[in-house]
Amino acid sequence: MKIFKKAVLPKGFEASGVASGIKRSGKLDLALFHSLPPAMASCKFTANKIQAAPLWISRLHLKQSARFRAIIANSGNANCFNGRAGLLAAKSMAELAARPLGVKPSAVLVASTGIIGKRMPVAKIKTAMPGLIKGLSSAGIAKAKTAIMTTDTFSKEVSAVFNIGNRKVTLCGVAKGAGMIAPNMATMLAFIFTDASITQKALDSSLTDGVGHTFNCITVDGCMSTNDSVMMLANGAAGNLLIDKGRSERTFRRALHEVCLELAKEIVKDAEGASKFIQIRVLQAKSFEEARKLGLAVANSNLFKTAVYGENPNFGRIVSALGGTGIDLKEEDLKIRVSSLKKREVFVDISVSRGRASATIFTSDLTPEYIKINAEYN
Amino acid sequence: MKIFKKAVLPKGFEASGVASGIKRSGKLDLALFHSLPPAMASCKFTANKIQAAPLWISRLHLKQSARFRAIIANSGNANCFNGRAGLLAAKSMAELAARPLGVKPSAVLVASTGIIGKRMPVAKIKTAMPGLIKGLSSAGIAKAKTAIMTTDTFSKEVSAVFNIGNRKVTLCGVAKGAGMIAPNMATMLAFIFTDASITQKALDSSLTDGVGHTFNCITVDGCMSTNDSVMMLANGAAGNLLIDKGRSERTFRRALHEVCLELAKEIVKDAEGASKFIQIRVLQAKSFEEARKLGLAVANSNLFKTAVYGENPNFGRIVSALGGTGIDLKEEDLKIRVSSLKKREVFVDISVSRGRASATIFTSDLTPEYIKINAEYN
Repeated sequence: MKIFKKAVLPKGFEASGVASGIKRSGKLDLALFHSLPPAMASCKFTANKIQAAPLWISRLHLKQSARFRAIIANSGNANCFNGRAGLLAAKSMAELAARPLGVKPSAVLVASTGIIGKRMPVAKIKTAMPGLIKGLSSAGIAKAKTAIMTTDTFSKEVSAVFNIGNRKVTLCGVAKGAGMIAPNMATMLAFIFTDASITQKALDSSLTDGVGHTFNCITVDGCMSTNDSVMMLANGAAGNLLIDKGRSERTFRRALHEVCLELAKEIVKDAEGASKFIQIRVLQAKSFEEARKLGLAVANSNLFKTAVYGENPNFGRIVSALGGTGIDLKEEDLKIRVSSLKKREVFVDISVSRGRASATIFTSDLTPEYIKINAEYN
Repeated sequence: MKIFKKAVLPKGFEASGVASGIKRSGKLDLALFHSLPPAMASCKFTANKIQAAPLWISRLHLKQSARFRAIIANSGNANCFNGRAGLLAAKSMAELAARPLGVKPSAVLVASTGIIGKRMPVAKIKTAMPGLIKGLSSAGIAKAKTAIMTTDTFSKEVSAVFNIGNRKVTLCGVAKGAGMIAPNMATMLAFIFTDASITQKALDSSLTDGVGHTFNCITVDGCMSTNDSVMMLANGAAGNLLIDKGRSERTFRRALHEVCLELAKEIVKDAEGASKFIQIRVLQAKSFEEARKLGLAVANSNLFKTAVYGENPNFGRIVSALGGTGIDLKEEDLKIRVSSLKKREVFVDISVSRGRASATIFTSDLTPEYIKINAEYN
């Protein structure tokens, strides 16, 4: 299996990106991902009870269709908390992309990222559509991956190439990050494409597994977004023997995990204002969920994050964060090790002597720069 | 009922404070509160699963005794995560105070605030004890309230005077605050004294009610402490008709609520680095607990807190924090009003159209000064 930090679209996919004017800066803000063969889709959406309009429309389309042809995504506007007008705008985005591609609107998924509560300028998207369609190509991923960025300072991209039987299969993921902490939006978006031929069941379970151990294990500021979406398309263009169970499914699952993990880590590395990349391993927990909860409690503690920023080791802040979860920890069972805080990468190992499960959480420190960016964004 | 922002000890109480050397700065760090008549006690401790040694010892004494004579409290050392040595130190503190007062050690409660994981210097407390005892007087509350402070910039104190029948009853509370956000410790402590004659049941239920709506409704950084304690003594010296049910109990309950509320607000006003005092009212919730959960979610959102600091109104950050609680909110039912962010006091009203319960949460903004203080405390 080869993993590389560059987006290389799998067979049968093309992409494009343009500046539609949603962002006043004139930067790229509208992306289209297109699968020539009809593709299966698997999606994960935020657990936030307030969800943006594109999530409602995408979920509706996931119910209506079994195969998908495109994802249209914009940055600069989250299309969230916009009421009925927001739903109509998201619906229009799918229709505007579907018409020139000659597919049904229900075969198009929609994603948005940006400011919450601002009306989506559908007319600008309509005007930009011919250029967006014209730009579609395999190389167009370069513009597409940029068009989904907001305050990201670099694009998050990774590809994996591996064999299923004697066929080469490609997995490619792009993401925009720092979403939960960014000033102008409230979104983490990831799009993953593969030419693998795979059953819906294997696709879904691989994604559930991958997301649970990667995207769901990162945190910047503990603020859960209304727009978080991971969307995956699998179009079968690799022509491999159908992946269902057994060895090929394990290979695919491992590749997807690597792609998700790399994207998740890139998101944390680009967290706004961050000066440290922190890895927290929780060991000997009763379950993965318990380990994850403990690790996230530490990762979301402002006192822990400022201590790392200040390079001041403080076990007390870790201990109080762990105890605050309500999980029945015993003081005498806790073992905590912290690497040197002087380095850019910080490692924290926490053993809780309760079982055999573990989880690894990635996070950043809390810095004056974070506050500056988020206080002065207007 | 008269409420005033000054600690006036009720009849039968005296207090004292000295510099024992626990704090290297030579500031006051050891306080003693003494009730001449045996007093009933009611206490609330942190929900954190990791609890400091003085909490274990105080809980043990609450089981062993029905009447109490003193509270010994120190600042500068939390006596938490110190293992068996910590328990022995807390036990010694009670014994050292009990002996010169001629009372049983189990009639003494213990509280500590300061750095976690640092050995408690019991010898210093022993040496300081004669001076502490000698200083006991009604006016000694001035030194006692200072001796429990750590990074507080002012003392938190309030008294209420009211009549039960024809007897004047006094309630007096002192607190140290900013605990959850302070650099050198992890503690909020409050001590409340009354000369009321009251049943244990009425005392307990009044305190549960008061704490639930005041101390449990404040947050600075969402970090739950290992040492939080509210300790209350009622010694009956006012000679009023026993408070049990009915009108006198309602009067007492209202007075206690006012005292707790005032102390809680003072704690938030002295939050480290804070530039704003924020009041969040959640209305039309299904229950007080639901309203409290929603309000705390907003109050603990770093994005919301930085927006207030930057005086940049941002409804999206409130909406995403509310939705992140998992409570089944409907976008169309939310009504949010925010007062001008230019002022030092900020008011947020959130209506959720789910029921008739409400809660009011008090919090502060998140500022570069908070990070500076908590990063550079060593």
